[in-house]
Amino acid sequence: MQLPKQVQIKEVGPCDGLQNEKTFIKTSDKVEFINRLSETGLDYIEITSFVHPKWIPQLADAADVLKEIKRKHSITYAALVPNIRGLERAIEAEVDEVSVFMSASEGHNKANINKSVAETFPILKEVVNEALAAGKTVRGYISTVIACPYDGYTQPKQVVRVAEKLFEMGISEVSLGDTIGVGVPTQVDALLSEMLKSFKAEQLAMHFHDTRGTALANVVTSLSRGITKFDSAVGGLGGCPYAKGAAGNVATEDLLYLLHEMGIETGIALEGIQQTALFIEGILGRTLSSKQLAIVRKEEDSCQTL
Amino acid sequence: MQLPKQVQIKEVGPCDGLQNEKTFIKTSDKVEFINRLSETGLDYIEITSFVHPKWIPQLADAADVLKEIKRKHSITYAALVPNIRGLERAIEAEVDEVSVFMSASEGHNKANINKSVAETFPILKEVVNEALAAGKTVRGYISTVIACPYDGYTQPKQVVRVAEKLFEMGISEVSLGDTIGVGVPTQVDALLSEMLKSFKAEQLAMHFHDTRGTALANVVTSLSRGITKFDSAVGGLGGCPYAKGAAGNVATEDLLYLLHEMGIETGIALEGIQQTALFIEGILGRTLSSKQLAIVRKEEDSCQTL
Repeated sequence: MQLPKQVQIKEVGPCDGLQNEKTFIKTSDKVEFINRLSETGLDYIEITSFVHPKWIPQLADAADVLKEIKRKHSITYAALVPNIRGLERAIEAEVDEVSVFMSASEGHNKANINKSVAETFPILKEVVNEALAAGKTVRGYISTVIACPYDGYTQPKQVVRVAEKLFEMGISEVSLGDTIGVGVPTQVDALLSEMLKSFKAEQLAMHFHDTRGTALANVVTSLSRGITKFDSAVGGLGGCPYAKGAAGNVATEDLLYLLHEMGIETGIALEGIQQTALFIEGILGRTLSSKQLAIVRKEEDSCQTL
Repeated sequence: MQLPKQVQIKEVGPCDGLQNEKTFIKTSDKVEFINRLSETGLDYIEITSFVHPKWIPQLADAADVLKEIKRKHSITYAALVPNIRGLERAIEAEVDEVSVFMSASEGHNKANINKSVAETFPILKEVVNEALAAGKTVRGYISTVIACPYDGYTQPKQVVRVAEKLFEMGISEVSLGDTIGVGVPTQVDALLSEMLKSFKAEQLAMHFHDTRGTALANVVTSLSRGITKFDSAVGGLGGCPYAKGAAGNVATEDLLYLLHEMGIETGIALEGIQQTALFIEGILGRTLSSKQLAIVRKEEDSCQTL
């Protein structure tokens, strides 16, 4: 198997991971969570979102979180921004990088940001322009790259079109999200095959949800296509924790196990990630879905098995 | 991606899946479980084990289960046999196929059947001889093909040696088990690369446990190597449900989702498997780990997510 020697993991637990949690999380707990993540060897943490608190009350303390965390120079602390107002708050809070987001499909884009795909571009263009003017790099999330809960399968060419528009604006990387976690390796392969006609592998990150248990299989397919950047969330946080297709982002610790066991370096300590996942699990008071956590939790026993 | 068009799934839920469950399951419930499985399109079901009841009390009713199930001609009903006494009981119960089992590693073989690998061969040879004389086909399970809980990593050449011995005895197929669910695609690829020097893909089945979430990734790697037979258990039954590394066999419904979505035919109805998984979950009174069941259980909801 032809695989990259090194992979960068972008931890999205504090933002994409927590945004739909119903348990109110204190600012001090978020700060502690991020500080612990900062000690694991990660060099990129998406820590919050500067959306209007009306939309995501859980992240209303975005500016306070940024102010209170212990920042390390080796780490890029990023935040989502939906519009100019959010960007201004993010810049004021001295975030390192901002991320804009939209969907490849009309249905999800409409549901998520109440605009058509075409209407979204000028809004993001203004945000990206101002972010670049303020000296920030910009990441672009494209959601529903495999399928949309409203529109069905997404055509790879539609993802290419959206990515082209975002790169024209001046973003440095797109993260391709299988938002509802339906993707399988053949679909990921087809998507990347199309994407890599227009973009380099290093311009792309993959963002898998493990709703149907296919996330790690999709990671391996992406690796075989030369992709070296992956988003994940400790504990498998994220997604719609209370909804159909509950599983969230691929768990950072499960991804680390896979990569390390395949001889791929990440610079991140599995043990530290596991402990941080147990910490946030305790705060949330619900059992997180990652496989590595299940192993850590259980006691030794002996069984007859094939 | 080069993939086979059709795959055979061998359902091991009633045997490998239930053998370590602490909840006592009534014979009538096992019979109902198997009868429901028989209606899903499966053509192979491993239904019980003729080991001494002292070792696996849960399967002490092996003969009764075989007598009471509604058998379909299109389905091979198989059972494990550890020795001549077990084989005789299995033949008397008119099983269609028997399976013998041993480990590739000394440590697990010793722990599981209290013999060295070398000491195991003559015992199995006698069983296989008598089974073939009685007109039964014989399947051979090789456990710990990736790693052993006692001896660490298993050398692919050791798996080849054990498989050669089993095929010399006259078995028709080996099932290669990643018993403790530690395998990753590079290791599966290396194992199959070695195995396929000596054997044809159609002589091999893969038996993955999903302890670390890598089972489906390992399936995809196996498919790319031409493997067309996989063992799985509805609901992800099996493994050591109460032990470290809890997750059991790869769940049949998760495997079906992957295969069908990749355009690979199985002849099995996902819906029927899901319903049967819910049935046995109800009998066991514990939540099974499969992703498809989590989706079936949850209600629709809406979330902000990437």
